[in-house]
Amino acid sequence: MRYELYYWPDIQGRGEFVRLALEAAGADYVDVARSTRRGMGVPALLRFLEGRAIPHRPFAPPFLKAGNQVIGQTANILLFLGPRLGLAPRGEADRLWVHQLQLTLADFVTEVHDTHHPIAGSLYYEDQKPEARRAAASFIGERLPKFLGYFEGMLERNRRRGGYLVGGRLSYVDLSIFQVIEGLRYAYPRAIARRAARYPRLIAVRDRVAARPRVAAYLASDRRVPFSNAGIFRHYPELDRTVSKR
Amino acid sequence: MRYELYYWPDIQGRGEFVRLALEAAGADYVDVARSTRRGMGVPALLRFLEGRAIPHRPFAPPFLKAGNQVIGQTANILLFLGPRLGLAPRGEADRLWVHQLQLTLADFVTEVHDTHHPIAGSLYYEDQKPEARRAAASFIGERLPKFLGYFEGMLERNRRRGGYLVGGRLSYVDLSIFQVIEGLRYAYPRAIARRAARYPRLIAVRDRVAARPRVAAYLASDRRVPFSNAGIFRHYPELDRTVSKR
Repeated sequence: MRYELYYWPDIQGRGEFVRLALEAAGADYVDVARSTRRGMGVPALLRFLEGRAIPHRPFAPPFLKAGNQVIGQTANILLFLGPRLGLAPRGEADRLWVHQLQLTLADFVTEVHDTHHPIAGSLYYEDQKPEARRAAASFIGERLPKFLGYFEGMLERNRRRGGYLVGGRLSYVDLSIFQVIEGLRYAYPRAIARRAARYPRLIAVRDRVAARPRVAAYLASDRRVPFSNAGIFRHYPELDRTVSKR
Repeated sequence: MRYELYYWPDIQGRGEFVRLALEAAGADYVDVARSTRRGMGVPALLRFLEGRAIPHRPFAPPFLKAGNQVIGQTANILLFLGPRLGLAPRGEADRLWVHQLQLTLADFVTEVHDTHHPIAGSLYYEDQKPEARRAAASFIGERLPKFLGYFEGMLERNRRRGGYLVGGRLSYVDLSIFQVIEGLRYAYPRAIARRAARYPRLIAVRDRVAARPRVAAYLASDRRVPFSNAGIFRHYPELDRTVSKR
């Protein structure tokens, strides 16, 4: 099965969580909007979003085409891919648990994004700077430690060796943890550096994922889009300097 | 199987999407934090959130206890309950599609919430009123029509009779559509009244769900928590009056 991933070509965004799963598993896939082949590129992506003929039209990228199936919503794509790529545990209860962690991570990612776009995604950052400062201060002071503490705690509770979030083997949520830690380090280097010692297990997951040969090869390739201030994780030094207070 | 639902007792919140599924199916369940029975109430809920002994601790309510399994994240709970309550289609592809729609609805609900809390959930509305005005204006002008238009379009594309979102039968996402339309009418009555004619199929889903005998009995009972300005959908007239502009 050759999978087709549809996502904006110039940002990591939410597509990156799917790319990492496909890459870590060595799956056969094409990153459609980044492809220069005939019939591909951004127009191919837009055909799905605008096409009136597609019964299961996704609301937004990323979406995945697998045979005749079109699947949207990042966590849903990973729910589908997990067992097929060997990145999900066996058994319904554990699969729901991985999915639950992925959905919690998705909530976290939305909150990270909203620090630089608290008023509206359609406005420029420059049009909501004072609001972003307040939002980022609250995020760093309250939400960041709450989310990171939660995932650190879930790693601590997993009795199986290996240092992964669920069971004794890598699953897609570990790959997403890698991406979130990388993104936070890019966006909020000061806030993260100050707190990293509290989350040794999360940092270890990040390192373990980065050291996997397929992931390392991917990160070194031009298939990995770099972080930038057009994505979810953006580095605005003025937001990384705030101290939380009510 | 007697299900145990854990959610804050005084608001509908995200717990309501699960309550509606349990009620519409006539499931045997107890709304733990609303129960006055011994060992129940809010302390029982807090034991799960704080308990160090629970391996799959949820990040936040709602969560569901089914036998020994504890399942968190609203859409994940519905993914689990759907087939068990007869509220999901057969077949993996259709189940993923219902789940995808539910996740898109969850994104919509988060955006509705953030209109009155754009800066931080931990601050009072009164501490972010000017920001909420800007956020609500953008929401009403751009996001509200985008989301409602999407779901209306998906209803239009479903070739099966019955007027439901997926296939020819009620699924949990139709119940959630009911709740979102009700909530929007409560929070943004002017904005919705002005636009309702554009979304006849969505309004029809709302009416069809409300007319189901079990749902009607539930809505008339004291098990249904009323809407209020402590929940996701809040009515602040000043936010409903804004006209979107950049």
